[in-house]
Amino acid sequence: MSLSLSSDDWLVTEQAIDFDQAGVFETLFTVGNGYQGTRGSLEEGHIGELSGTYLAGVYDEHDANVIDLVNAPSWLPFVVRVEGYRIDAQNCEVVEHQRTLDLQTGLLHRDTLFKDKLGRLTRIKSVRFASFADQHLCGVKLEVSTENHDSTITVEAGIDGKRHNLEAMPAYQKKRDFPAEVKWEKWAKSLHLEMQASEASKNLAYLQCKTMDTGIVIGTASALQGPEVSKPDQSNIDYRHVSQSLSIDARQGENYCFEKLVAIYTSRDVIEEDVRATAEKSVAAASARGFDAVAADSIAAWASKWADCDSVITGDVEATRAVRFNIYHLLIAANENDPRANVGAKSMSGEGYRGHVFWDTEVFLLPFFIFTQPDTARALILYRYNTLDGAIRNARENGFAGAQYPWESADSGVETTPKWTHDGQNRIWTGEEEIHITACVAYGIMTYLTATDDWDFMRQYGAEMLYQTSRFWVSRLEHNAEHDRYELTRVIGPDEFHEHIDNNTFTNRMAQWHLEKAAEIFARLDAEDGDGHDSLKDRLALSADEVARWSDVAAKIYIPADPSRNLVEQFEGYFDLEDLAITEWDENHMPLYPEGHDHFSLNGTMILKQPDVIMLMYMLPDEFSDEAKKANFEFYEKRTMHKSSLSPAIHAIMGIEVGDHSMAHRYFERSAFVDLINNQGNTADGIHIASAGGTWQSVVCGFGGFRVRHGQMTFKPWLPEQWEQISFAIKWRGKQLHVRINQEQCHFLFDAPVGDEEVIVVSDQSLELAAGTEQSISYG
Amino acid sequence: MSLSLSSDDWLVTEQAIDFDQAGVFETLFTVGNGYQGTRGSLEEGHIGELSGTYLAGVYDEHDANVIDLVNAPSWLPFVVRVEGYRIDAQNCEVVEHQRTLDLQTGLLHRDTLFKDKLGRLTRIKSVRFASFADQHLCGVKLEVSTENHDSTITVEAGIDGKRHNLEAMPAYQKKRDFPAEVKWEKWAKSLHLEMQASEASKNLAYLQCKTMDTGIVIGTASALQGPEVSKPDQSNIDYRHVSQSLSIDARQGENYCFEKLVAIYTSRDVIEEDVRATAEKSVAAASARGFDAVAADSIAAWASKWADCDSVITGDVEATRAVRFNIYHLLIAANENDPRANVGAKSMSGEGYRGHVFWDTEVFLLPFFIFTQPDTARALILYRYNTLDGAIRNARENGFAGAQYPWESADSGVETTPKWTHDGQNRIWTGEEEIHITACVAYGIMTYLTATDDWDFMRQYGAEMLYQTSRFWVSRLEHNAEHDRYELTRVIGPDEFHEHIDNNTFTNRMAQWHLEKAAEIFARLDAEDGDGHDSLKDRLALSADEVARWSDVAAKIYIPADPSRNLVEQFEGYFDLEDLAITEWDENHMPLYPEGHDHFSLNGTMILKQPDVIMLMYMLPDEFSDEAKKANFEFYEKRTMHKSSLSPAIHAIMGIEVGDHSMAHRYFERSAFVDLINNQGNTADGIHIASAGGTWQSVVCGFGGFRVRHGQMTFKPWLPEQWEQISFAIKWRGKQLHVRINQEQCHFLFDAPVGDEEVIVVSDQSLELAAGTEQSISYG
Repeated sequence: MSLSLSSDDWLVTEQAIDFDQAGVFETLFTVGNGYQGTRGSLEEGHIGELSGTYLAGVYDEHDANVIDLVNAPSWLPFVVRVEGYRIDAQNCEVVEHQRTLDLQTGLLHRDTLFKDKLGRLTRIKSVRFASFADQHLCGVKLEVSTENHDSTITVEAGIDGKRHNLEAMPAYQKKRDFPAEVKWEKWAKSLHLEMQASEASKNLAYLQCKTMDTGIVIGTASALQGPEVSKPDQSNIDYRHVSQSLSIDARQGENYCFEKLVAIYTSRDVIEEDVRATAEKSVAAASARGFDAVAADSIAAWASKWADCDSVITGDVEATRAVRFNIYHLLIAANENDPRANVGAKSMSGEGYRGHVFWDTEVFLLPFFIFTQPDTARALILYRYNTLDGAIRNARENGFAGAQYPWESADSGVETTPKWTHDGQNRIWTGEEEIHITACVAYGIMTYLTATDDWDFMRQYGAEMLYQTSRFWVSRLEHNAEHDRYELTRVIGPDEFHEHIDNNTFTNRMAQWHLEKAAEIFARLDAEDGDGHDSLKDRLALSADEVARWSDVAAKIYIPADPSRNLVEQFEGYFDLEDLAITEWDENHMPLYPEGHDHFSLNGTMILKQPDVIMLMYMLPDEFSDEAKKANFEFYEKRTMHKSSLSPAIHAIMGIEVGDHSMAHRYFERSAFVDLINNQGNTADGIHIASAGGTWQSVVCGFGGFRVRHGQMTFKPWLPEQWEQISFAIKWRGKQLHVRINQEQCHFLFDAPVGDEEVIVVSDQSLELAAGTEQSISYG
Repeated sequence: MSLSLSSDDWLVTEQAIDFDQAGVFETLFTVGNGYQGTRGSLEEGHIGELSGTYLAGVYDEHDANVIDLVNAPSWLPFVVRVEGYRIDAQNCEVVEHQRTLDLQTGLLHRDTLFKDKLGRLTRIKSVRFASFADQHLCGVKLEVSTENHDSTITVEAGIDGKRHNLEAMPAYQKKRDFPAEVKWEKWAKSLHLEMQASEASKNLAYLQCKTMDTGIVIGTASALQGPEVSKPDQSNIDYRHVSQSLSIDARQGENYCFEKLVAIYTSRDVIEEDVRATAEKSVAAASARGFDAVAADSIAAWASKWADCDSVITGDVEATRAVRFNIYHLLIAANENDPRANVGAKSMSGEGYRGHVFWDTEVFLLPFFIFTQPDTARALILYRYNTLDGAIRNARENGFAGAQYPWESADSGVETTPKWTHDGQNRIWTGEEEIHITACVAYGIMTYLTATDDWDFMRQYGAEMLYQTSRFWVSRLEHNAEHDRYELTRVIGPDEFHEHIDNNTFTNRMAQWHLEKAAEIFARLDAEDGDGHDSLKDRLALSADEVARWSDVAAKIYIPADPSRNLVEQFEGYFDLEDLAITEWDENHMPLYPEGHDHFSLNGTMILKQPDVIMLMYMLPDEFSDEAKKANFEFYEKRTMHKSSLSPAIHAIMGIEVGDHSMAHRYFERSAFVDLINNQGNTADGIHIASAGGTWQSVVCGFGGFRVRHGQMTFKPWLPEQWEQISFAIKWRGKQLHVRINQEQCHFLFDAPVGDEEVIVVSDQSLELAAGTEQSISYG
């Protein structure tokens, strides 16, 4: 194809078709642009296919057990027939196969040579993209060559509305080790789409449907172009599937190129009545320009994104590629143009967690966006503002005041955590108990404010969220008269091995911090933004007395600790639990469950799923002494199973902070390669997007040692000896700081208007940066 | 179409497309021939489709929870497109629609007028059959007319290998009242087919697959012919679906006729290597003759079947049609040519009970076949002989001697009853406890012998089954030393409301009868069949001493009873249970559950699901006095819920026998219309085939009062006053008796070689029948 490949450290490659791995590569090879994500299924379909196009914010429940991010009509289908014989891996032998995701351009390249039962060799190449320049556009270019035969070939470019979301049926899965073909059949299907239109002509195919409960109209328009010698073949118009066809009398050795361009619009984008005309007009215009021109726009947009967030690990191509792979998925997951949508736990690359939004956004994803794409960060936080009504409803339904953000959020902010595991065997308590999410939302707002100085945002949106959520905390906190202190009982902290616990330090301390920050913001806005703030206070019926009470309550929140050992206690009574030891590790030095235990049996022991206290110390770096961080890291690290993909990155970062580098590189790899090598075994369900954010943090905040402390950028780097240099960039209050760190030195280039200055701290040394000049400093 | 319709009392009609009823009509309109059954789905598919072609004896387990009768490749697909626009009920408005199943000819006729979105009216007529003359052949003739437009129409005749069996998911179903489109999606799919070949040319399409565990090769060959003006269009060859296409420039008002003929062969029919050639040759020959000629052969075969089993209720068209409908389904369910297959509880008309074979065969179906199609009956009993190894394995696995027939049987005779209900909530005990099945198998053998005098069969097969099963009983019976009697504890009788019961009278008495009959047969064969019997005894290591012990044990089997009330006790302790009354009936006078009770809560009460004692008295008419029958009928009838579709027919029959006619007609209707009006609500799962057999018995043995008593045909008729006459025929020892019964008289025509005589009993009067002359006698 004319669209050339980038250098090797940008390329993720599949070398053969392996149906057992089909789901994994569908996830890895997702193309997207924040508006849509489309899994990397083969154009013609395949065994074990679990394809999906997901549109940010398009949710529907209908007959699902819990609301789903809707599996929308697919724009991928592109089938080649040789004399009627469908060319695919089921019908043919796959002689050669390679696919390459070019992370730099966002193009997915494919080259497959098929041999059919009559020995005919047919090569199919394709390149696919979802445009970053116009988020509604996407396309596939297909090149067919008949290597040893002259045949009539037909190409069908379809839009498939026979979509459903999957409902897991684990009872069936465990029965046997199913072959790949069978595996995906053992699911129930949830339907979300009602058909409204399905039409196709020689010029255009169009399929329109509407989500059943939420009533969102989705229009997909597609146009197929082929070589001049091709003839229009019959278009097929079925109720839930349409296609355009072209046929050609192909001559041996010739290449024939077919372009399919697609536009997707929904009634979230334009009014319902305009969906069709807008989509059709858009695709007609794109088609007139041609595939390469449309793709070129997208590649240019990608280049501009990468300029702000690329990160290179010199001396380690694999690590560079892995970091870029994670950043690629972060970039296609979030939509700076849609403040009503957010990033689900599996982004738009799969149906795991049904597209629901967790604390992952605030704690794992936002740092990346805040420091590289602040506009996107702003949109992600605005989603919380736009779902504030749902949060208010949650609080009211649970008997509290103010706004309580949901543990799992979809389109409205109403709590959507399922109450039971798939099999109905285990009650899920996170929706009721994992209440720290509300403080994490505040944490996201405050981090954004610090990094951007965007006080307009704070005045318009941030303050209202902080105030309403503070009200929640004050009503949720329970006064213990005996000790005259405030407590939070029956909660779950970040470490989900322990349910129904009292006074989880992470939760209590974050709630306290939340109330403190809200009171600070209130004081400052009251002082500096008189009228605007008065109007907000009126609207919320919020008085200075009420805010004073927030501070009073915050001051009395109970934080369990053992001062004699300089240890924070994860929760009240944790130190009395059985101190079960981790004694075995797998070949990657990751802990194995103590004998006789599993996920559900560790409530009575000190074993953790993922960091809880350590997480807190990472998030609030100014609040704990170096000694406390070190003591707690040593204590908790050896009791942590890392059974969440979020865990290793935090341990990499905090290990480096406290000077324990022994596991840092391994934890980094664990995080960076979680999907590339499918080391949790569930990549087929979608990308571990929080881990992708954690990977970026482990480079920048771990090896780079970047932290914002007391409102100032600080660095405390450490590099594994096999790395020559790491480089990354940080957006800071409208400017940009380019950072290169090698084994001895840091190099900073402060990209800001001439005359701007910024004082940073590098390993406890102050450094004054001037705009436009690279400055270097030794560290360590 | 040129194939004309029979008179109204042969026709079952659907007047509109109602997707909520789609599954019901798919079941009712099943076409078949004992070799295959194909549900009556529309050729082009439809919402709520639950299509299936089932092949007798083709079972497979693979990833299903329990072995399935395999949903084999479908020969139905026949799609019409107008300018590419698929004509079906999803794409178009259905302006007119009617389907008619002609029970006399076995043809399913269809006439639908579609209006597409451009206002084009297209009429599609079809007629479909599965040949009774050559069980491997089937076909669809399609007539298309474009009523108000000239258009290019394309017709695609396909073979669909994308088949799966369904695994119910009731947890999902109960959540909401799903619309029809959604309803059938909430199932898990069990795959059974591995593809082997899929090809299509202008002349022929062929698809071959192999069942995954049982390795049965299934080849389906299809040939499409159209009018001379039609042009071959592209054949589509996909991995699991092939089709041939023809296109035509259709002119307004013209009719265009397309014929699709299909041949199905499996490696159960010919050796694996010959499957393809045989199927292709067969379809080529059929295609050369043309649809009408092939259909004519089938119609002739149907006529010959009906000559032996038609039954008319003069004065009641609805009842006649219903009886014929039940007989139609009996005829297409059983295969006289295949002694390795039997009839599942839903025949081959649906996936209910997964095609498993129950006691239904022996008790409900065999009487119909024995007395109208004795060759078919012989094949059905030979199935038990051919699964004797499985029965021996069951006995061995359960710790017993001899052969124990399974409660649910598939291809091997090994027990296949699932141990849990779909949802895993309720343990199913019938596989362990409903052991009367083994005596029922013996009952089928003995009834067949009495009616046919087929001693060759008894010598070759029947005796061996009787002996091996007797060994099972003797080892299973438990000696009670205190009372010196034999007992059977922890069983379930026909009434499944009561589990884990001891000494169920039905089971104990049938086991006793079984041992008695086995000993009698042994004595007679020993006397009359010296060498042959000696060889059998040698093979089984069976001595006269062992058989003497059968009689001894039989004599000591405990039968619970209350002689003071002339009552048989259903099981030991039954009379001590709570005597809960049925106090409410629905609008059809069928009992409603006592308040607060359901299927699973009646173990502690006297309420029955279906007759148990009454069933026994029906099956062994010579063993109980008239007084006992009357007393027990009165006692048990008012405690019976009729929650099995098998129940009403037996109560109709036994009510008439004891002179309680009050409910007889209502019970008959309940049985005869169970599927036609879907009065159990689950007709979509398949025909209640045992109820179909019960319906025939309620006419012949109920209203006709036919019973074999002491080896002689006897009649004790009673007719509802609204009926003028009933007629039926009975095969008896190679001859045939035609019976007509009106309100006063019976008319008998004995069809036998001249000179043959037969003495029968009519309402206690002896009647000597001479061959060839109709004789009449008054009754009552």
